Amino acid sequence: MDVGYHSYETESTHTAGKVITCRAAVAWGPGQPLVIEDVQVAPPQKMEVRVKILFTSICHTDLSSWKGENEAQRAYPRILGHEAAGIVESVGEGVEDMKIGDHVIPFFQGECGTCICCRSQKTNLCQKFGVNPLKSVMINDGKTRFSTMDGNPIFHFLNTSTFSQYTVLDSACVVKIDTKAPLEKMSLLSCGVSTGVGAAWNVANVQPGSSVAIFGLGAVGLAVAEGARVRGASKIIGVDINPSKFFKGKAVGITEFINPKDLDVPVHEKIGAITEGGVDYSFECVGNLEVLREAFLSTHTGWGLTVLLGIHPSPMLLPLHPMELFNGRQIVGSIFGGFKGKTQLPKLAEQCMCGTLNLDEFITHELPFHNINEAFQLLIEGKSLRCLLHL
Amino acid sequence: MDVGYHSYETESTHTAGKVITCRAAVAWGPGQPLVIEDVQVAPPQKMEVRVKILFTSICHTDLSSWKGENEAQRAYPRILGHEAAGIVESVGEGVEDMKIGDHVIPFFQGECGTCICCRSQKTNLCQKFGVNPLKSVMINDGKTRFSTMDGNPIFHFLNTSTFSQYTVLDSACVVKIDTKAPLEKMSLLSCGVSTGVGAAWNVANVQPGSSVAIFGLGAVGLAVAEGARVRGASKIIGVDINPSKFFKGKAVGITEFINPKDLDVPVHEKIGAITEGGVDYSFECVGNLEVLREAFLSTHTGWGLTVLLGIHPSPMLLPLHPMELFNGRQIVGSIFGGFKGKTQLPKLAEQCMCGTLNLDEFITHELPFHNINEAFQLLIEGKSLRCLLHL
Repeated sequence: MDVGYHSYETESTHTAGKVITCRAAVAWGPGQPLVIEDVQVAPPQKMEVRVKILFTSICHTDLSSWKGENEAQRAYPRILGHEAAGIVESVGEGVEDMKIGDHVIPFFQGECGTCICCRSQKTNLCQKFGVNPLKSVMINDGKTRFSTMDGNPIFHFLNTSTFSQYTVLDSACVVKIDTKAPLEKMSLLSCGVSTGVGAAWNVANVQPGSSVAIFGLGAVGLAVAEGARVRGASKIIGVDINPSKFFKGKAVGITEFINPKDLDVPVHEKIGAITEGGVDYSFECVGNLEVLREAFLSTHTGWGLTVLLGIHPSPMLLPLHPMELFNGRQIVGSIFGGFKGKTQLPKLAEQCMCGTLNLDEFITHELPFHNINEAFQLLIEGKSLRCLLHL
Repeated sequence: MDVGYHSYETESTHTAGKVITCRAAVAWGPGQPLVIEDVQVAPPQKMEVRVKILFTSICHTDLSSWKGENEAQRAYPRILGHEAAGIVESVGEGVEDMKIGDHVIPFFQGECGTCICCRSQKTNLCQKFGVNPLKSVMINDGKTRFSTMDGNPIFHFLNTSTFSQYTVLDSACVVKIDTKAPLEKMSLLSCGVSTGVGAAWNVANVQPGSSVAIFGLGAVGLAVAEGARVRGASKIIGVDINPSKFFKGKAVGITEFINPKDLDVPVHEKIGAITEGGVDYSFECVGNLEVLREAFLSTHTGWGLTVLLGIHPSPMLLPLHPMELFNGRQIVGSIFGGFKGKTQLPKLAEQCMCGTLNLDEFITHELPFHNINEAFQLLIEGKSLRCLLHL
């Protein structure tokens, strides 16, 4: 399907090598409404890429950073955002795998391709461009590519900073995809959908006929369901205290719902009762220790695997006793669904194009970029899965 | 090698179906010296086997039960012991895979062969005869097969109770091995060696050229080293605060030693420094939370796997933060090295016979059965790996 992205053709012949002035949503302090204002975006340096962002969406990690929940990670002014799709405006010295006009997806969990982790097939971590919430500048020179109109630095976020009409990324954090892929949906692959689908495919390796329980039915949880559906799981149990999530869940293949508020037993007991002693895989997409424990106990002894996707901001430790691991249940964490962005995202984009993966249910709202604070509110209130912002 | 076990031929033609009076080491209370005394051993019931124990050895689990460390698990009088080798004296109704005179190894982690776990290739747990430290009677009738000479019950232990010249086991907890296998060494396969070797082979699946760190160099830890050596690990680091373990460790393939007392940095930092950022696999064979954390942090981010073998009696929870799992390190527990006893022990015995696996280093002492309290003391003082008792 060629949806005519030539209409997005860049003005790069005029801008390459120059500072671009464009609109961005700037966070000036914890919890303060983002301010849409003009910012200056410097040209990409060595092994960097400047991208014209066409679509961006908001993920819970943007929310928590916006709120400044973790003081050590605060840095203002800052341009948040890490889910997006766009077009290469220009590339820095040494970039060979992308060129002006390429359609691209940024991703926060980079892939340098040369470190010991990138060379291993066992992990998608990257020692050079791995996600680091404390990082707020570019690696090349320890400086920002963003600045205010009066020349003061504006900090970067999660290797991406997509709440801007133009952003600069390390080339390790952006990948070219098929020009015919629908860019508005590709924004979902930047984080939420890849994280969920990849957790089912790469981390849990869900098998046909298996049973799955998903705790938390936001975009990530529903993407886990979609991934499990594609893999042929026969039972996909969704758990959420917000019953409005259940309708959407059916569309992505969830076969049974549990609202913990409706139960007079712990969720894991209910799940044990409706499965043969527990599910094969459970996914914690909330970031809550009580939920984590329920997810852990919901799997079958002997082989149950719990995959952690939710971020845990509390300093509390794992609510598990060492001996509980002797029951054969395992627990693993995953970042970006185990996907190596550079290597694997183009294929994932193809799977969306050919309909293997169905992304139709995930974009529940669309708004112009300048309504970004409204989009934040929709996510905070649990009303949206993803609100796509048009830049 | 036929070592002439015909000399151990049983008196079963005279004893089958009758109560046998024999010598056993009876625990009468927590920490009290075991008492060698006459006990009565009832005939095996349906799907049970009565075994003449020829050799038994002592494992730390016997020690902690003897001390009564966990009050809920106390049951006296009791016959402890779970590492042994012997000969079938008689079999109960329905037992078809063993007959009088067969050489056998008992094992505490049973394999019924029919439950959902036994039918799965993913686990060696068994829903019917899995290890249960609270269990002190036979499943058939909830009674004991042991009694004092005046007819009072003596409790069973870990499905095995091998500190007796005769014991009765569920057939799910005992397996026939090659008659030519050296029975005195086969006792090691009942627990310690299988647990360690299996952790390396079945649980971690140690790969050629990989790096390993083993915390705690008792029999189990040294068996991990032997398993890793057989698998071709190129670096096997042993960690223990008892330097006398190091000499023995060299014999089973440990390439480097670390005594935490000699360091002014945490062990994991030292290990990170002498490897490329951490080992591929670490094994916790101590049962201590601080050691567990060091073992966890000693592995490489991205793919490091920590296998828990030590028993953790403290109620303290895992000293790990959920987000630490997002570094790609994993932690798993294992019982009996992941071996399915019935299915896999005969092959393991063959691997010992042909020299693939070298058990020469593990039996450091041998004593007559009536010296069992002395054998306990040798283990408590860290002087023995395994003291083989001749019954």
